Amino acid sequence: MISPTAEPSDAGLSRRLAAFVRGSRWEDVPGPVRAHALRAVFNGFGTALGGSSDQAVIRLAAGLAPFSAGETATVIGHRARRDALTAAFLNAAAMNVFDFDDTHAGTIIHPTAPVAPVVLALSELRPVSGAELLHAFTLGAEIACRIGNAISPGHYDRGWHITSTCGIFGAAVAAAKLLDLAQAEIVWALGNASAQAAGLVETLGFMAKSTGVGNAARGGLVSALMAQSGVEGPPRPLEGPRGFLKVCSDAPRPELALRGLGAEWEISRDMFKPYPCGVVLNPVIDACLAARAAPTFAVDRIAEIVVRGAALLKARADRPDVTTGREAQVSAQHAAAVCLLRGTAGVADFNDAAVSDPQVRALRAKVRAVEIDAAIPVEAAHVSIRHVDGASLDVSEMAATGSLARPMTDAALREKFATLARYGCPALDAGALAEKLWALPELGDAGAVMALARPQN
Amino acid sequence: MISPTAEPSDAGLSRRLAAFVRGSRWEDVPGPVRAHALRAVFNGFGTALGGSSDQAVIRLAAGLAPFSAGETATVIGHRARRDALTAAFLNAAAMNVFDFDDTHAGTIIHPTAPVAPVVLALSELRPVSGAELLHAFTLGAEIACRIGNAISPGHYDRGWHITSTCGIFGAAVAAAKLLDLAQAEIVWALGNASAQAAGLVETLGFMAKSTGVGNAARGGLVSALMAQSGVEGPPRPLEGPRGFLKVCSDAPRPELALRGLGAEWEISRDMFKPYPCGVVLNPVIDACLAARAAPTFAVDRIAEIVVRGAALLKARADRPDVTTGREAQVSAQHAAAVCLLRGTAGVADFNDAAVSDPQVRALRAKVRAVEIDAAIPVEAAHVSIRHVDGASLDVSEMAATGSLARPMTDAALREKFATLARYGCPALDAGALAEKLWALPELGDAGAVMALARPQN
Repeated sequence: MISPTAEPSDAGLSRRLAAFVRGSRWEDVPGPVRAHALRAVFNGFGTALGGSSDQAVIRLAAGLAPFSAGETATVIGHRARRDALTAAFLNAAAMNVFDFDDTHAGTIIHPTAPVAPVVLALSELRPVSGAELLHAFTLGAEIACRIGNAISPGHYDRGWHITSTCGIFGAAVAAAKLLDLAQAEIVWALGNASAQAAGLVETLGFMAKSTGVGNAARGGLVSALMAQSGVEGPPRPLEGPRGFLKVCSDAPRPELALRGLGAEWEISRDMFKPYPCGVVLNPVIDACLAARAAPTFAVDRIAEIVVRGAALLKARADRPDVTTGREAQVSAQHAAAVCLLRGTAGVADFNDAAVSDPQVRALRAKVRAVEIDAAIPVEAAHVSIRHVDGASLDVSEMAATGSLARPMTDAALREKFATLARYGCPALDAGALAEKLWALPELGDAGAVMALARPQN
Repeated sequence: MISPTAEPSDAGLSRRLAAFVRGSRWEDVPGPVRAHALRAVFNGFGTALGGSSDQAVIRLAAGLAPFSAGETATVIGHRARRDALTAAFLNAAAMNVFDFDDTHAGTIIHPTAPVAPVVLALSELRPVSGAELLHAFTLGAEIACRIGNAISPGHYDRGWHITSTCGIFGAAVAAAKLLDLAQAEIVWALGNASAQAAGLVETLGFMAKSTGVGNAARGGLVSALMAQSGVEGPPRPLEGPRGFLKVCSDAPRPELALRGLGAEWEISRDMFKPYPCGVVLNPVIDACLAARAAPTFAVDRIAEIVVRGAALLKARADRPDVTTGREAQVSAQHAAAVCLLRGTAGVADFNDAAVSDPQVRALRAKVRAVEIDAAIPVEAAHVSIRHVDGASLDVSEMAATGSLARPMTDAALREKFATLARYGCPALDAGALAEKLWALPELGDAGAVMALARPQN
């Protein structure tokens, strides 16, 4: 194990991260971390199934089809195979398209979407055991989140889509581990990733978000493959004077990327989402579902709704006027309306049809404001409902489902997986796939998972 | 023609740029601008030939080969064809690998490398006339430079490799024009590009720079193809609150991207480089070549050399210790030493062999300092040589060869092209290719150019 205190501060950050990845052994990774990695891949696979038939993924797949060399890698939920780069792109896009994947508590990175598709694609190109796949995934997700720690919260606040910008480094590292690259080559992989690290918050709510997330996975895999081909990068792609951290952050703290490396695992702070929308909406949805169950609630008599939460809720999700499902995923107004009306918060409640549902539209217009309550954390929210007769109903949710304080159970993850498979890819035998995924740690050939991810008829 | 004063400031920047691209007609582009576009493509083609056998390009080509679908597009100077995306990537990398391509005076963008390979690749996929190709190229280069204007000089100063970050928008726009996309689709193309816009100065001097430049061309083409497939982007990818300009610049001036649009052409401020290295070194090289020709010059008796120039010279090129040709391309110390020693400044003077040449190394060590002279512009430099006997020689170059004040002639561009072709691809009939390129404006089938860019034996 690499000692976290071997060198102070950020000296040799890129080199030390590469050394950690190179030297890491699966048996040194603590059991709970390993278990979490499996849950992350399982959850991500489910969100990819759910997203596989979304129009963004369909259109990206159609546009990229002429540029895929052969049929060596599986596009989750699709019949046609593609090359590894294209499959990694499309599976990352699908995993994240509903924002229904996982979220790292420290950074709001969705680490699985850019990383898991890369190791899954590689498992179809070369013999990879389930443990090797999970190990490479764990390291990739860990490095993405650690780089994110070094530039949070300013990086995302400025407008970087951190899942893509940091995800490409995680993807590069995961691929480098599976390709058994030497330490210097891992630094080159980070350098090639630094030349491609991109993604803007401005694209959230639009299909172009998926272009960025797909590009992070694809570009990370490219970065490792280029390093393997000898495409050399700078020695300090992360911490150099014109490196990623200083360019993409106004106040980087590179020491945070190294703190506790090998002893503390950022991936343990990864949360799974019960609802297919921005994580800031989780407590709003919990509160609305609770309000709807209250005996005094009467949807027909609602006059006004006020949502209060952390500053991030307002910054990200104060969107009264939404016209597409994608925008609805980051709209507190829509989330409140659809949950109060329907009592559900599934994929079908955040798609285009739900947005244009006249009843949802009418109720959405009654969400008067999304207000900031500086006293509560991001996993909490208040919802106040005033009825036309003056009666009011106030509900507070202090630890949303899926938060670190109240994680989803394995059973809930299984149910989410099954629901998403039915929604996005009803032709698939999702049960067999789920069992194979849970067995990943013992699989000699991880590629067996992807073989079950294609509908056969 | 779009009126540049139809709307004040930056209102609707993305939409207005898209409208300009959509509405532009080749016959409205002034003759000198059209002529310049041809010179840019010609010059870029030559630098691609020269770079086609560089190790960076060879390694990138090898690493990407398994992921190219079919042989529909030419990799300049290579026998094997690749798909359009891969060819665009490799040709952009080759065009820029020696930093011997063109440079936009306002931004230091190398606009041709990310843009021309995209229109060249498309000319092999569909019928495109030479005029159509040049028109799309002109618009792409123009938009890249205009977006660069809006964020210069802070963007590059902070560490963005502006050729890549802005180039991807130019590539997207050029492809969109050739694909005949509607105005709204061009905005989507800009949005898909915004999700992938990347590139760091930290990678300069390393092969990973080429990963970034190649990615800009490829990603721009992907962006337009995705828009054509219906992958929607945000309405304001450039000027939005979390859009490219605000995220990637501390003080964006979006109005500069629109100023004089359609009346003034940024591509007219594009300069061609006589020497295969960073443009800031041009006056240093001119001064050293002049010094070497002076009667009092004696290379054996040099005790010390001092180079003085603009702040950018020191910031970019004060590199006494270089170990690779790529680093040497941005080293004032190396440039001074090799030019004083050899009296030449060609590709062979900025490669790995030149760097490790014992005589060059010895003289390089005598470059005592690179100093800032705040009084002179970036196209000027002073070189002071002190001989061991105390005699000194001072040479000033106030307008380097290749600057706007002293542009390369067509004859010089032809000679540069021929030299680069011999260096990078001696098996090619470069004469026939050069004639075809100069005839581009009259060609009915622009693809005929690429047909001559492959060595036949």
